[in-house]
Amino acid sequence: MKFSKLFIPTTKETPSDATLPSHQFLVRGGFISQTGAGIYDFMPLGKIVLDKIRAIVKKEMDETLANEVQFGFVTPLSLWQESGRASTMGNELLRFKDRKNGEFVLSPTNEEAVVNMVKNRVTSYKDLPLHLYQINTKFRDEARPRFGLMRGREFLMKDGYSFHSSQEDLVREFNLMEETYKKIYTKLGLDFRVVEADSGAIGGSGSKEFHVLANSGEDTIVVCNKCDYAANIEAAKREKKLYNFESLELKKVETPNCKTIEEVASFLHIEKEQTIKAVIKKAIFENSSKVVLFFVRGSDELEETKALNSIGALEIIDANEDEIKSAGLVAGYCGIKDLPKDILVVVDSELENSKGLVCGANEENFHLVNVDLKTLENIKYFDLIAVKEGDICSCCGGKLSYTKGIEAGHIFQLGDKYSKAMNATFLDENGKAKPFIMGCYGIGVSRLVAAVIEQNHDEKGCIWTKNTTPFMVDIIVSNSKNEEEAKFGEKIYNELKSSNIDAILDDRVNARFGFKIGDFELLGFPYAIIIGKKLLDGIVEIVDRKTLLKTEVKVEDVVSEIFNLIK
Amino acid sequence: MKFSKLFIPTTKETPSDATLPSHQFLVRGGFISQTGAGIYDFMPLGKIVLDKIRAIVKKEMDETLANEVQFGFVTPLSLWQESGRASTMGNELLRFKDRKNGEFVLSPTNEEAVVNMVKNRVTSYKDLPLHLYQINTKFRDEARPRFGLMRGREFLMKDGYSFHSSQEDLVREFNLMEETYKKIYTKLGLDFRVVEADSGAIGGSGSKEFHVLANSGEDTIVVCNKCDYAANIEAAKREKKLYNFESLELKKVETPNCKTIEEVASFLHIEKEQTIKAVIKKAIFENSSKVVLFFVRGSDELEETKALNSIGALEIIDANEDEIKSAGLVAGYCGIKDLPKDILVVVDSELENSKGLVCGANEENFHLVNVDLKTLENIKYFDLIAVKEGDICSCCGGKLSYTKGIEAGHIFQLGDKYSKAMNATFLDENGKAKPFIMGCYGIGVSRLVAAVIEQNHDEKGCIWTKNTTPFMVDIIVSNSKNEEEAKFGEKIYNELKSSNIDAILDDRVNARFGFKIGDFELLGFPYAIIIGKKLLDGIVEIVDRKTLLKTEVKVEDVVSEIFNLIK
Repeated sequence: MKFSKLFIPTTKETPSDATLPSHQFLVRGGFISQTGAGIYDFMPLGKIVLDKIRAIVKKEMDETLANEVQFGFVTPLSLWQESGRASTMGNELLRFKDRKNGEFVLSPTNEEAVVNMVKNRVTSYKDLPLHLYQINTKFRDEARPRFGLMRGREFLMKDGYSFHSSQEDLVREFNLMEETYKKIYTKLGLDFRVVEADSGAIGGSGSKEFHVLANSGEDTIVVCNKCDYAANIEAAKREKKLYNFESLELKKVETPNCKTIEEVASFLHIEKEQTIKAVIKKAIFENSSKVVLFFVRGSDELEETKALNSIGALEIIDANEDEIKSAGLVAGYCGIKDLPKDILVVVDSELENSKGLVCGANEENFHLVNVDLKTLENIKYFDLIAVKEGDICSCCGGKLSYTKGIEAGHIFQLGDKYSKAMNATFLDENGKAKPFIMGCYGIGVSRLVAAVIEQNHDEKGCIWTKNTTPFMVDIIVSNSKNEEEAKFGEKIYNELKSSNIDAILDDRVNARFGFKIGDFELLGFPYAIIIGKKLLDGIVEIVDRKTLLKTEVKVEDVVSEIFNLIK
Repeated sequence: MKFSKLFIPTTKETPSDATLPSHQFLVRGGFISQTGAGIYDFMPLGKIVLDKIRAIVKKEMDETLANEVQFGFVTPLSLWQESGRASTMGNELLRFKDRKNGEFVLSPTNEEAVVNMVKNRVTSYKDLPLHLYQINTKFRDEARPRFGLMRGREFLMKDGYSFHSSQEDLVREFNLMEETYKKIYTKLGLDFRVVEADSGAIGGSGSKEFHVLANSGEDTIVVCNKCDYAANIEAAKREKKLYNFESLELKKVETPNCKTIEEVASFLHIEKEQTIKAVIKKAIFENSSKVVLFFVRGSDELEETKALNSIGALEIIDANEDEIKSAGLVAGYCGIKDLPKDILVVVDSELENSKGLVCGANEENFHLVNVDLKTLENIKYFDLIAVKEGDICSCCGGKLSYTKGIEAGHIFQLGDKYSKAMNATFLDENGKAKPFIMGCYGIGVSRLVAAVIEQNHDEKGCIWTKNTTPFMVDIIVSNSKNEEEAKFGEKIYNELKSSNIDAILDDRVNARFGFKIGDFELLGFPYAIIIGKKLLDGIVEIVDRKTLLKTEVKVEDVVSEIFNLIK
């Protein structure tokens, strides 16, 4: 392709809301263009990258014998009512009415659609397993769309759904998908981690995320320095920290102005570990909301996703002063004893059966000491804590630490959640109707365009990996008005093309050399060949985009040199 | 691919609303599945066909150096307000609000989006021409979605938009696109016609449609038996029919119970050609509606699209009795003289300056004779008539006749309609800002899936063309439990695969021969190889799907025979 024939509107202007490098460089490089909050058009270069990633995903999925399909982007709301998600998906599910007042949604994911497709068409265990996938546009009406392609509302996703007659067969497919996804990210040239994950609104048991490691990642990944353990902080576990405190008589003590854990521990001359901390939240359920009390050890922090999962709420938010008061609680002195009866209480599992603890007395300026949790009723224990750096790995005893990741894939063992709700069954070997056992598997295709750049860029621009770059080589004719240079550029361009190397010839007559080099650095093709004044001496330069190092080569060697670099 | 690994849920049940063969066979063959009115999922076989057509379209478009992009499916309504189409597109434009009450539409076409993309990014005539296209989902909220993929609401379309600095350059691209589209339909193996067309809601001057000829086509195409002339009836022209009637004194005559042209002509002993016929319509404009009177010769019929275009209305519908009365008109006796002042009157061009005519007297049971149109004021002449079979071709004097077509493509010379409205300009050679001259070009990709079948089917099912068929050869193992047959099937399958021939092996153990043949006939792959009992004698059969003729071949010749057939 020639630069003069491709619409690549590069610019020096950075969008004011673009904080991430991928957002800045993809817009500045003319890869994408924003049309609304979280909605982007792909311009020609961006479309080429998107298609390259899409093709890699498709090839690997087809290798597994999964069948590609295409679901309607517009889906009847009735399907979502059947599964029950019409009411649990919240505002992210964009609903609208057509001209006849029929209710529809823009598909954010397609569990319902796929069950609808398979239901009554697959009737026997003999026709299982079956895996259907598509690579298609999705829409999620995010509350805060941001970071360019990273958290858009309209995005391209590969979503696959498998159907099985048994849990064992689901696990086989789940493992196959884990391997397939690893192949895909490896082909894309990405540094990634497979991590244990929370299953979120999709539901089901057992899920893994695939994270592209990058400083800008929105997710905190907990990794072990010794073994392979890696988990999203939302799901991370650690070796339990157990303490044994002396159990004396329960007492109420005055603790004036001790509102924080630090103040209480210091005032009572105890360690923070002996205290328990109340976190007051308001939980939003399908048809109601409620103040909920979460308790973790004073030295721990509440992990919000775990808290959400512990009560099956749609959302939890901070309770405000009025809500706390009317729930009969005293902010800063909230304890676990003698609580109003209708308050939901969840306590971190590591505290189960603990004694000798200190907590608020539900009275301004007072705490209780020697609290014994065994004496309390109606307490629900659940893993609630956020693993900290330095905690111990429960698999191997190694040390856990944090890293940042961009979620680029997620695979789930769904079980029969959707097939049961939608009454989709098959006949087993004994002729008995059973709901399908399902898995689902997603890759954020358009998000990967950004993720590649988050992981591969410098202050000048993009650095594409070899399988994602729109072009492998940028042939820069320093001065396109110079006939010799222009001719040699064409010659090299044709040679590379006939060797099946994706090259782009910067033949722009009205662009100066500095501008062309600037575009090369911003656009991030792996190599450039600079054809300049030394052409007269039979010399051109090859630039490596990653290192920006220049090497002089003889004109007769340039094609073979590029070949060597690419291999 | 093996049948046992591909989800092909064929069925004998025809959807109750499926009147067209393509609708029936695509659903019965498990190509597509309906999820809502005018919304279809593509199952694996349908997706393969869709991708084959898409790839052919993309390849030919890329050859022309058009650049592929991808627009958001969700588009801010504000862009449509800028162009003015928010109010002119009517109910087909599906609008909705997001969680923050922002207004959006589901893109039915992308003139606004492309102007938005190019505006301020292309600033000089030096960067022109530019042609951007995409192959992406569209949504039109049709009042009556029907005929399966033929008139769906969600559909896949190739839409391209070109930008030029002059009308001449637009015409060059327009012609290039005509040639490109011809190549595409030829590659798809379709019998098609390029026809003169009406430009409809897209606007602009000069447009051509590409029609796949099929009895079930919704469009009537006028073609000449001598020359290349072909036009949609909405835009078709004929050699003018001129008559010269004697002009005597204007008179009102009693014509009891003569409400139709036939009755009047017979009563007055004149030819129908001497009468003029009033067609009373109600025209819907952006902010108003109005009764309009169209006049054509008594022997002609009004063409509704021409009528619509003549007054620039959004829609025209039949006026009801009350509306006719309150407009001061007398149904059945409506004439062209002494009309209420505010009534819009349009007369067919062929009647211009005619005299000696007969029309209603705007009075029950009375007509006027010897009407001279030259004596009337405020008459607008416009081409209004529907060309009839047997009319004379204005290009060559040949005879015109009708044929039926499925609109599968449409190319438009838009001019500056959108660039002007959206203030999108470039600087010309003299540094003067000018609106872009634009063209736009569409191909209905998913509709083509149906169009191929409308043109190629028999009573048993689909007959795919060679470049659209999901598989070229269906290897039917008569009895998959027979080891010899199954083994030979695998052998042929592998041989064809290694020769790059798309083959599907019907290896289904639990399907009987009759079922497999039935599927072959329904699914419509071009050839089948039947491996049956004669395998013992070294004989298999090849079936040609089009003719259903069977030929016995020796097992050692079967691959080379298939090769010959495909070539």
